Amino acid sequence: MDFSEMWLDIKPIENIDINSVSITCTSRETASSAAVWELRNSFSRLLPDVRFTERDADYKIKISIAPMDSPESFTLSADNNGASIVGGGGAGTLYAAFTLLRDIRLNGFKTLNISETPSLPLRMIDHWDNIDGSIERGYSGKSFFFVDGELVINERTVQYARFLASIGINACAINNVNVRWGAEMLITDKYAEKLSALGELFERYGIKLYICIDFSAPISVGKMDTSDPLDEKVQKWWKSCANELFSKVTGLGGFLVKADSEGQPGPYAYGRNHADGANMLAKAVKPFGGKVIWRCFVYNCAQDWRDTETDRACSAYQSFSPLDGKFDDNVILQIKNGPMDFQVREPVHPLFGAMNNTNIIAEVQLAQEYTGQQRHVCCLLQMFRDFLDHRTYCNDDNDTVSDVICGIAAVSNTGDDHCWTGSELAAANLYGYGRLSFNKTLKAEDIVDEWVKLTFENNDAQSIISDILLNSHDAYEKYTVPLGIGWMCKPNVHYGPDPWGYEFDRWGTYNRADRNAVGVDRSSEGTRYSLLYNEPLRTQYNSVETCPDELLLFFHRVPYDHKLKNGKTVIQHIYDTHFEGYEKAKSFAKAWKTLEGKIDDRTYENGCERFNEQLRSAKEWRDIINTFFYRFSGIADEKGRKIY
Amino acid sequence: MDFSEMWLDIKPIENIDINSVSITCTSRETASSAAVWELRNSFSRLLPDVRFTERDADYKIKISIAPMDSPESFTLSADNNGASIVGGGGAGTLYAAFTLLRDIRLNGFKTLNISETPSLPLRMIDHWDNIDGSIERGYSGKSFFFVDGELVINERTVQYARFLASIGINACAINNVNVRWGAEMLITDKYAEKLSALGELFERYGIKLYICIDFSAPISVGKMDTSDPLDEKVQKWWKSCANELFSKVTGLGGFLVKADSEGQPGPYAYGRNHADGANMLAKAVKPFGGKVIWRCFVYNCAQDWRDTETDRACSAYQSFSPLDGKFDDNVILQIKNGPMDFQVREPVHPLFGAMNNTNIIAEVQLAQEYTGQQRHVCCLLQMFRDFLDHRTYCNDDNDTVSDVICGIAAVSNTGDDHCWTGSELAAANLYGYGRLSFNKTLKAEDIVDEWVKLTFENNDAQSIISDILLNSHDAYEKYTVPLGIGWMCKPNVHYGPDPWGYEFDRWGTYNRADRNAVGVDRSSEGTRYSLLYNEPLRTQYNSVETCPDELLLFFHRVPYDHKLKNGKTVIQHIYDTHFEGYEKAKSFAKAWKTLEGKIDDRTYENGCERFNEQLRSAKEWRDIINTFFYRFSGIADEKGRKIY
Repeated sequence: MDFSEMWLDIKPIENIDINSVSITCTSRETASSAAVWELRNSFSRLLPDVRFTERDADYKIKISIAPMDSPESFTLSADNNGASIVGGGGAGTLYAAFTLLRDIRLNGFKTLNISETPSLPLRMIDHWDNIDGSIERGYSGKSFFFVDGELVINERTVQYARFLASIGINACAINNVNVRWGAEMLITDKYAEKLSALGELFERYGIKLYICIDFSAPISVGKMDTSDPLDEKVQKWWKSCANELFSKVTGLGGFLVKADSEGQPGPYAYGRNHADGANMLAKAVKPFGGKVIWRCFVYNCAQDWRDTETDRACSAYQSFSPLDGKFDDNVILQIKNGPMDFQVREPVHPLFGAMNNTNIIAEVQLAQEYTGQQRHVCCLLQMFRDFLDHRTYCNDDNDTVSDVICGIAAVSNTGDDHCWTGSELAAANLYGYGRLSFNKTLKAEDIVDEWVKLTFENNDAQSIISDILLNSHDAYEKYTVPLGIGWMCKPNVHYGPDPWGYEFDRWGTYNRADRNAVGVDRSSEGTRYSLLYNEPLRTQYNSVETCPDELLLFFHRVPYDHKLKNGKTVIQHIYDTHFEGYEKAKSFAKAWKTLEGKIDDRTYENGCERFNEQLRSAKEWRDIINTFFYRFSGIADEKGRKIY
Repeated sequence: MDFSEMWLDIKPIENIDINSVSITCTSRETASSAAVWELRNSFSRLLPDVRFTERDADYKIKISIAPMDSPESFTLSADNNGASIVGGGGAGTLYAAFTLLRDIRLNGFKTLNISETPSLPLRMIDHWDNIDGSIERGYSGKSFFFVDGELVINERTVQYARFLASIGINACAINNVNVRWGAEMLITDKYAEKLSALGELFERYGIKLYICIDFSAPISVGKMDTSDPLDEKVQKWWKSCANELFSKVTGLGGFLVKADSEGQPGPYAYGRNHADGANMLAKAVKPFGGKVIWRCFVYNCAQDWRDTETDRACSAYQSFSPLDGKFDDNVILQIKNGPMDFQVREPVHPLFGAMNNTNIIAEVQLAQEYTGQQRHVCCLLQMFRDFLDHRTYCNDDNDTVSDVICGIAAVSNTGDDHCWTGSELAAANLYGYGRLSFNKTLKAEDIVDEWVKLTFENNDAQSIISDILLNSHDAYEKYTVPLGIGWMCKPNVHYGPDPWGYEFDRWGTYNRADRNAVGVDRSSEGTRYSLLYNEPLRTQYNSVETCPDELLLFFHRVPYDHKLKNGKTVIQHIYDTHFEGYEKAKSFAKAWKTLEGKIDDRTYENGCERFNEQLRSAKEWRDIINTFFYRFSGIADEKGRKIY
């Protein structure tokens, strides 16, 4: 099979005086055997002439296990002569091995003394892979898990498990949360054997297997006439289903559920709430240590655009905040970073400050659904950083998002493309997401630096690519959707500008532009969304004066000549950012052109194609958004640039 | 098979003292045998107890042939005792038979003396049926010609041929002008036998079979490396293809071609013009009496929305008017009624006044792509009437569209639905189109009256349905797109409102609305489209003062407070018509409800469903279009009605 090794493509190190390596491991854990294999494989590539011996080696690696905070914890000490790895469990040894290898590749054979426990216990990737092989919001080819209704396990699957383990991911949901086209049958005998084989492979790499289930499976699979969570027959059916599944499938972590959302079935159909639904499933998987991850992405997707009272942004809060404390301890709520849906700029979801007594994890999206679909370069790591650092004010201190969550999940951006992520540069998002979930204090620029050094050899290339990545989100935001308003993309495909594509539709995503003003009033005078935040955020967001400009049009409706904090009018800000964003994109494309010969041809060509498309599309964004607002406002650009 | 007989569903006539009927026919023409069959079949349904004898019958029908203007001409004289039919050929006898039967059903056994020659020699239906069974812009189910790549002939096909003959249609292109998914192979041996069987059936009903061909068939079918019309190998290939096809397929009329349009291949790829392309094909089919019908729907479908110089409306004129007189005599140019694409209101295509030395036919669309897709009732007959009566001013007199064309083609609105046309009411369009093409002087209200009487028995129902139909186009125009601007529908699907769905796209279909004005300046100060008309139209359209209000925004860009000829401002006209149009639709739905029990249940239910959808959709149109213009103009409705 032909695919890239991404950041695990190990090149030999020159001028190292190590001729022999020994690896001794006293752990019998399956993940430790993966650690040994990874070390052996990687050293044979780092040092092509190396011999592996059992003793008296130039470089000695010792692996063992000892009680620690968590089985995923480890200590790693190393110097020129070898390394000592002690894990809290098999996973700890595996993470230590990857840490050692990464450090050697980045810094050479240096002295190391690291003690680490992953910041967040649950570090997850959610695949939106359909059972027919298509991927919802997939921009990197087809599924490598599913082909024509069958589960596939091959070299790619092994390589993928290695990628995930190397960045510390420990859970993976393999199918789309929109469970359809036969995917509801994944919980039946038909798939048990294949699932178990996958679960075993994942287990070796410290990854729990999750399955997205159809909440109405008692009907669709069980041929019953209800899936009411309070119906005893339904409860019994799920218990029996869980019993079968956990007994047959190795390494199963539990279920991920999208319920009562965008047409998916859920407890509301029976007058029950989300706690009723989630707890019923939780009880079924509890005996097997299983977890139920329950998405909070619940809103009315049949809104009348004429209705200005209903606000989609409020919806999940209204559904879930009254249920805080009512969920079983093996239920985990999965909350999107913002209240809408993975826009380039959104406020942090108010639920993060409202669920003190519930297990919650954050959901972010690596698939660049609304951020250029891996055709535009858009590094999401600083956005993730800011999100994790955002204070919720639900306690007096230690109340940033990263403090209140017990894990994080990301919608995958991978597929069966040669480079896995559509654009080679999009791999930085996957890599960085994993690194950040493992160590939530890492800085975006340090992660990018790591990824660039692990991926590209040439120093110029490293620095140029780092620079592109670190500026890419800002550029994308500038030439697309201004001041947090969101949703100015083409409906359905979510690619390219269409400023009123959603304005008269049923999705609750409006900008309400007219000749006088733009934006949605979500203050206490409007939809009252701002009141869902804890103080001082509530007051800050509620007032036009104190609301951060970057979210101004999300929270407020203002005239085009409203002055931002820098003294610019809203309309001039729109013009300026759109011209600037496009120029930035142009500078990226130009910088990329200088990489010819400095990086491999395939990556170079992949980038050229995508930068061409990014420029074409960015120009459309710039001109259409500027024209849209110019036609409404009638206010000319101060700098006299061309607006149509 | 279960399908409606539409207007051919013959009910017994009461109190007629005819016990026996004789039919004698001296014509050996195949269409005359169909005439005999139609008469015998229909009389046995009109008079269930009738005996057919060879002589001394109460009612004697004599059929013969004599030289006339055309084989399609006929004389028909009838009284209480019988009818005499003389046809110029078999088709003439068949048309006379249908005329007699229609008249008996409408008026009883009256004295008749009719001499008729069809107004237009070519009266065509164009199917946009794909070979996989789907129908492009089909709203009446799937194709009854094609199923999974195979040509199908069954009772439905026979019934369809009877429908066409009964309204005088004499040509039918069975496949989509966008030739794809294997339809390019229709000209090969694979389909010859089936095509010939269909051609034979059609021939019996006086209908010529046409096939849409792929202009690049020398490449796609012939595996050559070019389809350059001036290349001798290409010319030879087409000659050989036509030779094969005409020798094997009975009743073949020729080819219909969409070239250099919306991605279809054409002569432009080789630097040739449309005359080069059409004449090359014409020479290939000439020896067999074949015709080449060549569509003039040619425009740049990759326009930059920023480009205000290019005007799609001018495009066909620019391509074809310089070629007037350059086409072979068996080439027929097919020109859409308007310069854009079957909008609810367009000016008449300027090419009709510019092709004095070329065979031209008009193309209209029965499929209600832009007029409610057979979910909204929208009777097109008055629009066709107005179109045919429109003066082109290419001569001093006799220069209406109906004078300058040698035929007319309509995109079919049929499919394999039970009622054939999605909505039962849409059958009026098919019926009326045929009647109008046969006798171009008929009035829309008379045709509707005919169709209603042939379709419904109940007098109340007849009058209510006539009323709905005759007011339906006006209502649809009112609640949808104002003053001729067009294209405010959802892109691709062309259903439902999306006033800026096309504004920033590549299709050349813009309204250029802003806070000050709306409309496209196509005058001498703008795209100069108005100058393509002959005087006095040129002057009339060119000036805001003299341009008909119904086309004002098509030809001109005006401020919202521009006064129409009735003294209303543009914006108030928009508000008024949108509220009125919706109320009209409501009155249709209400009137339909009174028909329960007066028409058959299936038709009644079909109507109820569709009127519900029409109302839902009409409300969206009303509110979205009003809101769109209100947000731009900021001008309140004088009557204070709700705008969002």
